[in-house]
Amino acid sequence: MSYSDKHKIKTCTMQLPVRLLLGPGPSNLHPRVNQQLTSSMIGYTDANYYTVMDETMELMRYLFQTDNHFTIPISGAGTAAMETCVSNLIEPNDKVVCLVSGFFSDRIYQMAVRYGANILKVDKQWGSWFSLEEIESALQTHKPSLLTLVFGETSTGVKQQMEGVGELCHKYNCLLMVDCVAALGGVPFFVDQWKVDACYTGGQKCLSGPPGISPLTFSDAACKKIATRKTPVANWYLDTLLLGQYWCPEYNFADGKVVKSDPPPMRKYHHTTPANLIYALRESLILLVEEGLDNVWARHQAAAIQLYQGLESLGLKPFVNELNESSEKGGRLFSLTTVTIPEGVDGKMVMKYLLDNFNIEIAGGIGAFAGKVWRVGLMGFNANPSNVKLLISAMSDALKANGYNN
Amino acid sequence: MSYSDKHKIKTCTMQLPVRLLLGPGPSNLHPRVNQQLTSSMIGYTDANYYTVMDETMELMRYLFQTDNHFTIPISGAGTAAMETCVSNLIEPNDKVVCLVSGFFSDRIYQMAVRYGANILKVDKQWGSWFSLEEIESALQTHKPSLLTLVFGETSTGVKQQMEGVGELCHKYNCLLMVDCVAALGGVPFFVDQWKVDACYTGGQKCLSGPPGISPLTFSDAACKKIATRKTPVANWYLDTLLLGQYWCPEYNFADGKVVKSDPPPMRKYHHTTPANLIYALRESLILLVEEGLDNVWARHQAAAIQLYQGLESLGLKPFVNELNESSEKGGRLFSLTTVTIPEGVDGKMVMKYLLDNFNIEIAGGIGAFAGKVWRVGLMGFNANPSNVKLLISAMSDALKANGYNN
Repeated sequence: MSYSDKHKIKTCTMQLPVRLLLGPGPSNLHPRVNQQLTSSMIGYTDANYYTVMDETMELMRYLFQTDNHFTIPISGAGTAAMETCVSNLIEPNDKVVCLVSGFFSDRIYQMAVRYGANILKVDKQWGSWFSLEEIESALQTHKPSLLTLVFGETSTGVKQQMEGVGELCHKYNCLLMVDCVAALGGVPFFVDQWKVDACYTGGQKCLSGPPGISPLTFSDAACKKIATRKTPVANWYLDTLLLGQYWCPEYNFADGKVVKSDPPPMRKYHHTTPANLIYALRESLILLVEEGLDNVWARHQAAAIQLYQGLESLGLKPFVNELNESSEKGGRLFSLTTVTIPEGVDGKMVMKYLLDNFNIEIAGGIGAFAGKVWRVGLMGFNANPSNVKLLISAMSDALKANGYNN
Repeated sequence: MSYSDKHKIKTCTMQLPVRLLLGPGPSNLHPRVNQQLTSSMIGYTDANYYTVMDETMELMRYLFQTDNHFTIPISGAGTAAMETCVSNLIEPNDKVVCLVSGFFSDRIYQMAVRYGANILKVDKQWGSWFSLEEIESALQTHKPSLLTLVFGETSTGVKQQMEGVGELCHKYNCLLMVDCVAALGGVPFFVDQWKVDACYTGGQKCLSGPPGISPLTFSDAACKKIATRKTPVANWYLDTLLLGQYWCPEYNFADGKVVKSDPPPMRKYHHTTPANLIYALRESLILLVEEGLDNVWARHQAAAIQLYQGLESLGLKPFVNELNESSEKGGRLFSLTTVTIPEGVDGKMVMKYLLDNFNIEIAGGIGAFAGKVWRVGLMGFNANPSNVKLLISAMSDALKANGYNN
């Protein structure tokens, strides 16, 4: 055997511009979070690492507003956390209702199909959300063991109303799974008070952290469902029975009921967790604690309202009409705003202008919204008055440069 | 709904010791790799990010010594890369041969079971490897479409001999999947010359990088197998047909044959990839290029031989007898050495002594080797003469402190 130089490309320095990321994520990392990425590597059985794990789990309970014991970070993108829910909570032929009115709610549906679910897909126009009546009707019709929805839909900028949804699901003996990727840590969300059974987010949205690590929480009811599966989870990497033996071995749900052992059994290695990302996530959560979630939510709301006013001054409109500042109602998602592209304006050219002239990234629409909207994210650290000021002023230039004068 | 302060733990600074990580991984990050973790975040559709992706893929071809077009990093631990192979290359009822003689080869088997494979598990004593005769016998008996093995078994310190294995598999119309997690970038390995169809490693071993990002390569034959599946991959996050549309859309194998499109179609978003980890991986690979893989291999071999001599001076012995410096033969794995714990010595106390007094981490045995061996990793950046000197000297103290005098 002989060594080959064939793919030995010339070494070069990585050329990265410094962007202000005001799209649907990733957002800019908070400097303190960024710094923690380089904290010293230690082994996955080091007692000091166990402390970091325990602290991170407790901080995530604050983020989720839950007492759920099973609250762990998944070693992958938000999509991996989504798949953790789907693969663990669904057995072949289980009845599932998927509420679909956007790109990511449809992704849940596509995943659930792969795990052999018997699915009632309730399609609704992109940009809308579901009423309690519509949800109850689906529960009555299909009698599912799991209902899935997206709370903050990144593709449409819509917030699903949550008040009463959990009660309704439980009334019909159904678990409730909620995608919170674009919203958690930016918009009020209450896992326990809203009786949500499975919920997750990603590091790179409202947490101002790196992508690749994704907080997830399961209620005891969700854990029991998994503990009483007839078939093993068809996904080894994301099997929460195995993950639980590493993250929270004192919380045993492998035997069909939830038992807390004291003293806890030894942690059991599953995979090498991404320590650097966990250090960063921990710091993201400490920033939330320092500021206070209630203040964080207020800051996101203020930035969003400043954005709406700025858009209006440019003659632009958010795509979602209903504002609904109340946390219980559906409507606009404060962390991600879809903006209608005015007729005659080339949305891509405006985005290119912002990027080329001001290093500001906003995104275009995807799926059914391609070409129809811009997507503006004001998430985490980035949700502040200066960024909105800058964006509106830069948008004004970009619109003029593209022949649009309001 | 009301906000709760319940899990708002007191903020505190993370307490991390600075360890010399001489276990089975994670290894210490090279300082240049560590630094790249904090390079500026950009969007996953940014042209500058596409350049980073393309460079990383080409650098990985150098690492794997392959021309394989489909050579991408998986967004997860080495176990996620393992599952990418298993979930994509196996359909329900496919015949598979799993060669098992250690913890990680058994993990492949456990995963394959979950994907409904019809498996011939060829068990051999831990610490041994497989001969061509044994492999041919399994191929003849079971007529599998996939054979799986581990090249560098972290649990036993054994290197599987590779010469002729690929030819044999292909003679029987079978694909060859090889786990290289503990070896790649430290020990000679030749994907193309050895005719390996699927291969992967992790960032945190011989690449001196962070865990959570895992290089993977598929041969054209593997891609064709996936393109002609009768059922979708039962794993959305790790579906290489979808991942390929983002990483290498010009390389289309979705229609049953491998076609290179020119000009390439647009990249299609799949999930938000862990940019910080990809920056770091790119730097790990550039370090390999700068030093030259042949020199890197020689450095790992020299460190291992220095370790063997040092162990001998302490009256200790590597568990694996056969040395076999030739890259084609099985025997000791230079990057990871299992050391027999002498009778009467408490292996855990020695490890604790090294950790408490010198901040040096080595590991104990797992599975069938629990309590029988220590595991010493000299991987990547850590494979250097100073570390071996220090370890042997510290081991000498640790042994004396535990009543062992050779």
